[in-house]
Amino acid sequence: MKGVQGSVGVVKTNLLNIGKLSLDSGKTIPNVEIAYEIYGRLNEDKSNAILICHALSGDAHAAGKHRSNSRKHGWYDIAIGKNKTYDTKKYFIICSNVIGGCQGSTGPASINPKTKKPYGLSFPKITVGDMVRAQKKLIEHFNIKKLFCVSGGSMGGMQALKWATDYPEAVGSVIALATSAKQYPMGIAFHDLGRKAIINDPDYKSGNYYGGRLPKNGLSLARQAAHITYLSQQSFERKFGRKKKNKNGHKFGIGFEVQSYLKYKGESFVRRFDANSYLYITDAIDNFDLTEDGKKDLAEVFENIKSKILLISFTTDWLYPPKQVEEIYQSLAEAGKQVLYRELDLPWGHDSFLVYNNTLGNLTGEFLKKEYIRQKI
Amino acid sequence: MKGVQGSVGVVKTNLLNIGKLSLDSGKTIPNVEIAYEIYGRLNEDKSNAILICHALSGDAHAAGKHRSNSRKHGWYDIAIGKNKTYDTKKYFIICSNVIGGCQGSTGPASINPKTKKPYGLSFPKITVGDMVRAQKKLIEHFNIKKLFCVSGGSMGGMQALKWATDYPEAVGSVIALATSAKQYPMGIAFHDLGRKAIINDPDYKSGNYYGGRLPKNGLSLARQAAHITYLSQQSFERKFGRKKKNKNGHKFGIGFEVQSYLKYKGESFVRRFDANSYLYITDAIDNFDLTEDGKKDLAEVFENIKSKILLISFTTDWLYPPKQVEEIYQSLAEAGKQVLYRELDLPWGHDSFLVYNNTLGNLTGEFLKKEYIRQKI
Repeated sequence: MKGVQGSVGVVKTNLLNIGKLSLDSGKTIPNVEIAYEIYGRLNEDKSNAILICHALSGDAHAAGKHRSNSRKHGWYDIAIGKNKTYDTKKYFIICSNVIGGCQGSTGPASINPKTKKPYGLSFPKITVGDMVRAQKKLIEHFNIKKLFCVSGGSMGGMQALKWATDYPEAVGSVIALATSAKQYPMGIAFHDLGRKAIINDPDYKSGNYYGGRLPKNGLSLARQAAHITYLSQQSFERKFGRKKKNKNGHKFGIGFEVQSYLKYKGESFVRRFDANSYLYITDAIDNFDLTEDGKKDLAEVFENIKSKILLISFTTDWLYPPKQVEEIYQSLAEAGKQVLYRELDLPWGHDSFLVYNNTLGNLTGEFLKKEYIRQKI
Repeated sequence: MKGVQGSVGVVKTNLLNIGKLSLDSGKTIPNVEIAYEIYGRLNEDKSNAILICHALSGDAHAAGKHRSNSRKHGWYDIAIGKNKTYDTKKYFIICSNVIGGCQGSTGPASINPKTKKPYGLSFPKITVGDMVRAQKKLIEHFNIKKLFCVSGGSMGGMQALKWATDYPEAVGSVIALATSAKQYPMGIAFHDLGRKAIINDPDYKSGNYYGGRLPKNGLSLARQAAHITYLSQQSFERKFGRKKKNKNGHKFGIGFEVQSYLKYKGESFVRRFDANSYLYITDAIDNFDLTEDGKKDLAEVFENIKSKILLISFTTDWLYPPKQVEEIYQSLAEAGKQVLYRELDLPWGHDSFLVYNNTLGNLTGEFLKKEYIRQKI
């Protein structure tokens, strides 16, 4: 079914120059470009726009395909299209690549206008707040005063919550899945592993590898470490069990299917992702903390929120476990906000937020339908 | 208290040449040396011996210290000594370094008598069965016909179960903690990460690094990946939370205490462990499957067991979760064996089996006391 019925068809990634972007660090980036895609039509009073925020490794290409003969669909094609959860007959969908990314938006692989060379590690550090500030400029480009909804899972959920707190007037509703109000230490530890794998790679060359050999081994290993955290004990057992794979090459190379799968995941990631972006974006996630390191109470942070919020966690998600989503729920409830929370017992671990299923589809679909009425679109 | 009251005092590691060792693979290793330590006294009828089996990174030095002025105690000093759980006033305790290890027993860093050079990757692959077969020779050296108990956690638990199935007449009782009847795919995936980190390290040089630069970065990263799996979400939060650490060095170096802790764990591991041993031993664990890849039913494998068995799992252990220990319990029960199973809700994740606490101490202590009577020592 994927990509056939209800597909948004052939789409293209657009670029918008949003000019200078001020960062949370106080630094600025000149001439920032944001890559984005749009699906559906913006209505006359510009009240039907949904911003989809991608996770760590995502991009602006959320739905449809780039060529009619391509077999590759956008990363959220399952949910975006005609009569799908994010129904393009009703909504105008926007998805943009985050600042610091490597899929069209300005990031460490971009050319520094001062030096005419790629930024590399001279690119300033970015935050989830900076990602949202860049998206705000994109939304202003469309003269949208208020988004009907901001939706995202994992790091996308962090952006959605940040939108609701930083721009309360501009957000009608929020759908945040498999996410957290702050990054917890086990998540930091896994990102740390990945960053070390990249930095240790002799081809990394302090981030100045552009035009030469890419730090493939390091980036691949980083992806594999992360990928393990996206699955669940159950999905590992269902997918692989102890199935063997013919050994070739190194004495301690591949012996089991699970190893072959991880190798493949690592290799395909290296073809589409920049190692420096991996460092910058994981660092942004690790430094994400809505309480500003305990300086504020979470309920206090949520005080100004004006949007209705749907929170979803997954029982088998051990990267952003239900407890962390519950923490958001409790604080929103304490702040007297309109919030719905559901823990879904789906088997796919953290990745559950990306996997199509009726339970998740119905829950988010119903929320959007009710909001459609409540917000009088 | 540790190492003071009830300490076994200053001990030394001994070496025993067990001659040629036949391996499960059909290969043999000539002139095998086994490093071991002993605590307490063997009684006249040699009925009070307990074999302690170490986990992946352990060694023969389970209790006491090597020099009176040393601050370092054996890895299980908390549980072994006078009036401790493994009471050296009653029992004769033996702990040996596994074959393939790097703490005295013959392994890939040992000199190959044929070439007069370290084996490196020419060392044959080993299995948990091979580890046990080597231990059996050590036990025979002491003319012990039957061990009062074989005890171990994690890979040590795998050895204990293997002892009970391979040498049913030689095992009076078994204590197996935080372990599994076979390695599950998520465990394989984490080991795979670690092995890749080692093999990717340019200093690894296909395993021929002896006498030169050691593959420190790779081995350290492998240890860090593994160490994450030994803790629990809770212990990460209690130990570190989001506590910051002053940044020095790399832009994406240490920003949080959890990163500093992992770095320290990696660095100290590199000083005591051989990278090739890490490959061989993790490979042995990954290939451990008492059902021989489903060829046998687990209850059938357990049919000949003559020992009484205590199984312990930990609620917060996600590396060898309770489900995997329950699987052993169910099959032992199905085979009509004498088995006790307890899941303990301790907060330290997989590491709970190494952390001193009354719950665990009382449970294993009571089991041993009852066995002391039942086996008529």
